Amino acid sequence: MVAEKCNFKENMVTRIVDLRSDTVTKPTEAMRAAMASAEVDDDVLGNDPTALRLETEMAKTMGKEAALFVPSGTMGNLICVLTHCDVRGSEVILGDNSHIYIFENGGIATIGGVHPRPVKNNDDGTIDIDLIEAAIRDPMGELFYPTTKLICLENSHANSGGRCLSVEYTDRVGKVAKKHGLKLHIDGARIFNASVALGVPVDRLVQAADSVSVCLSKGIGAPVGSVIVGSKNFIAKARRLRKTLGGGMRQIGILCAAALVALQENVGKLESDHKKARLLADGLNEIKGLKVDVCSVETNMIFIDIEEGSWTTAEMICKYMEERGILLMQESPSRMRVVLHHQISATDVQYALSCFQQAVKGVQNEIGI
Amino acid sequence: MVAEKCNFKENMVTRIVDLRSDTVTKPTEAMRAAMASAEVDDDVLGNDPTALRLETEMAKTMGKEAALFVPSGTMGNLICVLTHCDVRGSEVILGDNSHIYIFENGGIATIGGVHPRPVKNNDDGTIDIDLIEAAIRDPMGELFYPTTKLICLENSHANSGGRCLSVEYTDRVGKVAKKHGLKLHIDGARIFNASVALGVPVDRLVQAADSVSVCLSKGIGAPVGSVIVGSKNFIAKARRLRKTLGGGMRQIGILCAAALVALQENVGKLESDHKKARLLADGLNEIKGLKVDVCSVETNMIFIDIEEGSWTTAEMICKYMEERGILLMQESPSRMRVVLHHQISATDVQYALSCFQQAVKGVQNEIGI
Amino acid sequence: MVAEKCNFKENMVTRIVDLRSDTVTKPTEAMRAAMASAEVDDDVLGNDPTALRLETEMAKTMGKEAALFVPSGTMGNLICVLTHCDVRGSEVILGDNSHIYIFENGGIATIGGVHPRPVKNNDDGTIDIDLIEAAIRDPMGELFYPTTKLICLENSHANSGGRCLSVEYTDRVGKVAKKHGLKLHIDGARIFNASVALGVPVDRLVQAADSVSVCLSKGIGAPVGSVIVGSKNFIAKARRLRKTLGGGMRQIGILCAAALVALQENVGKLESDHKKARLLADGLNEIKGLKVDVCSVETNMIFIDIEEGSWTTAEMICKYMEERGILLMQESPSRMRVVLHHQISATDVQYALSCFQQAVKGVQNEIGI
Amino acid sequence: MVAEKCNFKENMVTRIVDLRSDTVTKPTEAMRAAMASAEVDDDVLGNDPTALRLETEMAKTMGKEAALFVPSGTMGNLICVLTHCDVRGSEVILGDNSHIYIFENGGIATIGGVHPRPVKNNDDGTIDIDLIEAAIRDPMGELFYPTTKLICLENSHANSGGRCLSVEYTDRVGKVAKKHGLKLHIDGARIFNASVALGVPVDRLVQAADSVSVCLSKGIGAPVGSVIVGSKNFIAKARRLRKTLGGGMRQIGILCAAALVALQENVGKLESDHKKARLLADGLNEIKGLKVDVCSVETNMIFIDIEEGSWTTAEMICKYMEERGILLMQESPSRMRVVLHHQISATDVQYALSCFQQAVKGVQNEIGI
Repeated sequence: MVAEKCNFKENMVTRIVDLRSDTVTKPTEAMRAAMASAEVDDDVLGNDPTALRLETEMAKTMGKEAALFVPSGTMGNLICVLTHCDVRGSEVILGDNSHIYIFENGGIATIGGVHPRPVKNNDDGTIDIDLIEAAIRDPMGELFYPTTKLICLENSHANSGGRCLSVEYTDRVGKVAKKHGLKLHIDGARIFNASVALGVPVDRLVQAADSVSVCLSKGIGAPVGSVIVGSKNFIAKARRLRKTLGGGMRQIGILCAAALVALQENVGKLESDHKKARLLADGLNEIKGLKVDVCSVETNMIFIDIEEGSWTTAEMICKYMEERGILLMQESPSRMRVVLHHQISATDVQYALSCFQQAVKGVQNEIGI
Repeated sequence: MVAEKCNFKENMVTRIVDLRSDTVTKPTEAMRAAMASAEVDDDVLGNDPTALRLETEMAKTMGKEAALFVPSGTMGNLICVLTHCDVRGSEVILGDNSHIYIFENGGIATIGGVHPRPVKNNDDGTIDIDLIEAAIRDPMGELFYPTTKLICLENSHANSGGRCLSVEYTDRVGKVAKKHGLKLHIDGARIFNASVALGVPVDRLVQAADSVSVCLSKGIGAPVGSVIVGSKNFIAKARRLRKTLGGGMRQIGILCAAALVALQENVGKLESDHKKARLLADGLNEIKGLKVDVCSVETNMIFIDIEEGSWTTAEMICKYMEERGILLMQESPSRMRVVLHHQISATDVQYALSCFQQAVKGVQNEIGI
Repeated sequence: MVAEKCNFKENMVTRIVDLRSDTVTKPTEAMRAAMASAEVDDDVLGNDPTALRLETEMAKTMGKEAALFVPSGTMGNLICVLTHCDVRGSEVILGDNSHIYIFENGGIATIGGVHPRPVKNNDDGTIDIDLIEAAIRDPMGELFYPTTKLICLENSHANSGGRCLSVEYTDRVGKVAKKHGLKLHIDGARIFNASVALGVPVDRLVQAADSVSVCLSKGIGAPVGSVIVGSKNFIAKARRLRKTLGGGMRQIGILCAAALVALQENVGKLESDHKKARLLADGLNEIKGLKVDVCSVETNMIFIDIEEGSWTTAEMICKYMEERGILLMQESPSRMRVVLHHQISATDVQYALSCFQQAVKGVQNEIGI
Repeated sequence: MVAEKCNFKENMVTRIVDLRSDTVTKPTEAMRAAMASAEVDDDVLGNDPTALRLETEMAKTMGKEAALFVPSGTMGNLICVLTHCDVRGSEVILGDNSHIYIFENGGIATIGGVHPRPVKNNDDGTIDIDLIEAAIRDPMGELFYPTTKLICLENSHANSGGRCLSVEYTDRVGKVAKKHGLKLHIDGARIFNASVALGVPVDRLVQAADSVSVCLSKGIGAPVGSVIVGSKNFIAKARRLRKTLGGGMRQIGILCAAALVALQENVGKLESDHKKARLLADGLNEIKGLKVDVCSVETNMIFIDIEEGSWTTAEMICKYMEERGILLMQESPSRMRVVLHHQISATDVQYALSCFQQAVKGVQNEIGI
């Protein structure tokens, strides 16, 4: 079925290697079995028992009081930002290259009326602490200003290629937040990747945060869902907002059962995903015509740039690869993104690498150079 | 685990008869098998094939161009209202006793800034056509007025006890909408119940509507989800808003596979649910101290009132029943609601009836009358 | 210039009698002199001294801690409702025939995301206390509900023809509000009319209210502006929201100087306006073909209905009157509204009456009856 | 009364020289006379004749079809942005140092749900055209993105010290907007200053804009109000939104009469304001310890920086000056702002200069250096 959407040269394709995102993983047999036998109940009228189990486990893992299952990372972030910014006239400081600001439809403003205050993201996903402090509105000037209520970080940081914020950095931002009476939210869509890459327990990594949203359907490999964590009071408010947004669902034990298995199965595999990413990055960087900042490959993502002066384009390479069953994400005319996950094997990586090599040549041949 | 939340006298309880809502059904073996083997893909990056299958089938069934799977009925309604009312300053005419107005957190205003114009719902769930027309704002007075954009109906109508709007009535409202350049949305959470009860094909029943939201996790019995239907253009806009709200999910083929089975299995059982509801209603109405308007039991819902002058209260009866494994919904100090669904057997109905009989007596005994 | 808009038979018109609203008054010589000599300053950077004087006086008059000048009654109500309902998910209970709900563009929802919960207004402008209490959302059901935060009353009540809410009624609603932890706002656009008509000091009349908006450009006769009053903390928040909405203006001492004169000049004339209204009402009611509920004429407004079965229409009468320099407001095909104010003399009333008499006949003649 | 708020050493102060902003001007005798004799009417029920005159004149002056008087520049900008972005999910590109983004309470998001996309403002108030184009969202990625609808410029640009955007630059941005189907709004709070400084007729300067907001109570010197201009259709929508926000006022001929005089009297004086600004800037720059980028003084504003390593602070200087009747705006610990206007004479400028000289010394003396 993916085949339908791709223009495969049918005979050539032996398998699909989907490197577009770590959201594309299929549930494993164990997850499917868990879904098939999950104990469930109506999670709107009360609490689905499997959801409760997942929420309890996630709260503990993240070192927070409470947790809530939500349909998506976007809703997780939206609920967290809106819950912290529940008073009209709130402003949130966040990275100008962050997922919330760039890729979530501007929902915090569109839906929540929250004023975003984007501040420059560095190449490594951090925001200079000075810039954060400078962006906090002077409460003395309040007649003209919205009220700063929240700082958002993203760890690992997708648009910087999956780079990690250190625990020291996070703690420092947490201190700034506290000093000014602000809250700190971490978009932890891939927080387990960061935890593994940094070798820091995930609860320690988010210790300074008042809330975290964690995606279960990215590197963790569950089919659907995210979890948000925070204080009991915060989660109680969040639950109500989840209902308002239409994120209250019924027998979600089905999805939570898969997520519980995914946590069991795949957190331990993230290190291997990162290794494969570095292998692939090294290999790609050796291909004439392509360029990868290998140092920036800290987790499971790689940005691949077309070298300047090349006749090739990202579009041409993506098409060439797609015909061979390898799916990439085109980021710009000269940049592609690949994301590793537990369903990409070492063999897939080798296959991808050799196709990339051919692609650069092949594309040149096709356009007659 | 339901047991935990109930105060069961453990020895007495042989089974749980959950009559609180038709949202409480558990997935059947066939649904679980379908989920376990569902073909899936990332429904955000593209289209999950099973979701596509469900959406295609639902669009066809409802007689509309396109369909979209959403996490809940609340999100379905929210997306539909906001998509029709996408311009700031829009107003929607809807029943003052409708689910959207009463039970969805005021989301259309809170989240969407849409001004609700509730109009009196009759006991049968209809709104007088005259009142609808009178509520449409005079475009000549526009300086002071929001702009009427949408009329919402609900079929079957939950707060009237699941009564059905006829196709003639719906068509008439549709004509009023067209005449004034408005759209018509039907909250069809239980539209299949209405279709079956009226003996009108569901596509004919919603023919006049520009959009319908249909719940899959109520009478249909799927674990999670609703579907909205409308024109291709409408659904394209709705898809984007679904993403904004955080309702875009990944491998939703899991949920859609269950829904496809549920549609197959359970639409045919709705008539039986309705029969059981009437049986139960008749039986309840014969119990001295209880009162049911049996004529109003058109589908799978029953409102049970405590007769005036009775020493019993709804709270006492609900508690008594719960101790015997029968879960009801208390609506007010003197009213309870029961909802039939495919997992309530004829035996359950008899058991419930006899418990109700004892309840009225038992409660009297307990309080020493 | 009014003449341009009217279809005057030029020769006939000796003067314009504008009965459309009490908003149409022109500033008097004394007001103009006050404006010409007003002490002013930048009211955004600090406080305009004349504005400060007006605000201080109005706070005292209304018996509240603080006051704020705003450009209009609509903004006054909008600021008050949004300030009380500053948390996302708030709901306000208000009359279904109230000015805020009907004539202010749905701004509280459109602009503020506040969910309106309109409750039936009686013919006298009251809302049954039972209905108010019933509309307060059960905090136990909060997952599905917005949070009731505010009750709004309107005194005098425009859409009921300027009828007054008694101090007893207002106090009772205030008690309900307190009991449930809600706030009470009074749309007091014409609160001075109510105070005069009821013979109750205005501060006593609004004693139960947490905020009041008072229009200066209706019966009071100032050219522009309203004032809102409440606690110091409330007004501090309101000031900020005024800035957000764009209601912060610079040298408003100009407008406030006129308002101070208007308060001095015209509050004392309201009783006379009411007398003229009753005179006019009595006279109109005696005209065959017209019908006025004279008992409902408690302040300065009259609704004039065309008797059923009459050949005349409101539109025809309005046109006939307009040709004679008398401007009315047409409310519906069979209803007109007139509003008395300090620039309508006893002679004007007599002139209007005789024109009405001719109108009914004249219109009959013109259409050949 | 200003004296109350200032800590004047009473004996020293011979006059107040208010350099905080050009919003502080008092209405002149001619304006006061015009207000006292203004022809007025209810501008909500119809059109106030003097407002109509002002709107007609401003539309013509700005070269647009229609105009609308609004209470403030903040409301003018808010209405324009929201009218262009009337569909939910709209995004606006604007300078990250622009008045709309920084000083208007985030109203476009808070009140309008519009997603702001701030782009780096250069020191001269421009935004690089490349950056504007890069910030326009790819319509292909629309599932994740809000929809870019509007670009905002500010001319002259307050936070860059009143620098002017050239007609060439503005035209180029206009072309980008057209190419992408976007609208262009100019915050022209001080557009007349820019027009005079650039020697370009104001209608030519805003030719590329779809809407402009022009402040009448800044350099123009009117007591209250702004005007927005645009197409007839745009202004019709804007009028309705003005009502929603509470900006519809009654006998505004009072204010408009003053504005008409102000336009007559003061546009011609702007050149002199600019000259005085340059004189003052030159003088200030010669004071050891102060620093002014004299080249950037293009209109009536000056930013005065404390030289690095100085013992003085902006706060100390502001206090010293205030004691001598000269009011400044403190921008930061090391920066002050002064704004010239028609009520600052050449003598005032000399007095201010000598006080500044003493201030730097005096402050040093006071702290014992």
